[in-house]
Amino acid sequence: MENKQTSLFSLNDILNFEQHYRAAFINSLSGFKSLALIATIDANGKSNVAIFNSVIHIGAHPPLMGFISRPDSAERHTLLNIKETGVYTINHVNQSIYQAAHQTAARYSKEISEFTVTGLTEEYKNNFSAPFVKESNIQIALKFKEQINISSNGTILIIGEIQQVFIPANCISTDGFVDIEKAKSITGSGLDSYHTTQRIARLSYAKPNKAIEKVISQFNHE
Amino acid sequence: MENKQTSLFSLNDILNFEQHYRAAFINSLSGFKSLALIATIDANGKSNVAIFNSVIHIGAHPPLMGFISRPDSAERHTLLNIKETGVYTINHVNQSIYQAAHQTAARYSKEISEFTVTGLTEEYKNNFSAPFVKESNIQIALKFKEQINISSNGTILIIGEIQQVFIPANCISTDGFVDIEKAKSITGSGLDSYHTTQRIARLSYAKPNKAIEKVISQFNHE
Repeated sequence: MENKQTSLFSLNDILNFEQHYRAAFINSLSGFKSLALIATIDANGKSNVAIFNSVIHIGAHPPLMGFISRPDSAERHTLLNIKETGVYTINHVNQSIYQAAHQTAARYSKEISEFTVTGLTEEYKNNFSAPFVKESNIQIALKFKEQINISSNGTILIIGEIQQVFIPANCISTDGFVDIEKAKSITGSGLDSYHTTQRIARLSYAKPNKAIEKVISQFNHE
Repeated sequence: MENKQTSLFSLNDILNFEQHYRAAFINSLSGFKSLALIATIDANGKSNVAIFNSVIHIGAHPPLMGFISRPDSAERHTLLNIKETGVYTINHVNQSIYQAAHQTAARYSKEISEFTVTGLTEEYKNNFSAPFVKESNIQIALKFKEQINISSNGTILIIGEIQQVFIPANCISTDGFVDIEKAKSITGSGLDSYHTTQRIARLSYAKPNKAIEKVISQFNHE
């Protein structure tokens, strides 16, 4: 029988948690997360790739994506390279590379490319100077647009404009929706949990006094 | 046989997409998303609840969460109420309420509470003045902390500090990880797609020259 007991935690309880317990707890609360490998290269040609779980949609016109960077973490090399070269790629994580993707979070020195130590493959194409992750099915090239400092805790929101997108042709539906589940992208929760997904439904555009209907995606390429 | 053909889209292609096609396309690229009902109340006691797919972790100490608001959308009432009262709640969406959650995105006038028209239940407890969504298994009370204007496209990042958290006791593991899949939280993709999840694994903290191990969550309450 299911236990219906609910636990309540106050801000004071949270502030008194042991540090690692608190990090695991609070990182779980924001819900399921995107999992992306952000790949960069520095001015000397040294590549870098790191996993991020904070990529978010910012806008469609112009096409903008954002992610949060913590200056004191393994993510700092990504930020340095983006500021140095102005370009980066966002590559979706799938089940066949999730362990290699997780390993990119280790604090390697700047001289070591995570591509070398994790077995992920850097791919250069279509005249874009930052590397893509070859094993990723959805690859997005971006140009740095705006850095926003979050004064509440010193983290940074990096905004980029999409320059190029590579997607499996059979995952693009006729209304523009990209079926990222079909493209084998996965999701994360907390700091360390990886999940596949199973579609419940797509729903029609919500309007007052109009019943929602399920939408069936149509694809031109199968 | 799987079609391995890859489609390439340039920034120029994207800018020339039909508007709704572009919105569906670009909203898909950021990966899987959190699904949260943000509930508020205005100074006159009129409640509001709206679905958001942009809630992200900002930091654990202090415990901070963020979300993106588009000033010209149905999300504007949420923003107005947060600025007016300084408080709001974030409530995870689960499969039993996903259609009602989707319907909150319709553009109702300010006099109409989405709680009334969608069948979601507003719940007031523990001296917090904003309503929780009763049907949600993970409920978080927040205090407004910081508004950040994103100059690239006029959207707004709202940051709040966690004040209270309600979680099913049997979903909290002994290391602080909250099993949101066990709590029946779901994830979204694009503008309109809803998905359940299936855990692949939790992975141990990544360090250079150390093999990753799978982590099995332990629970005190079953």
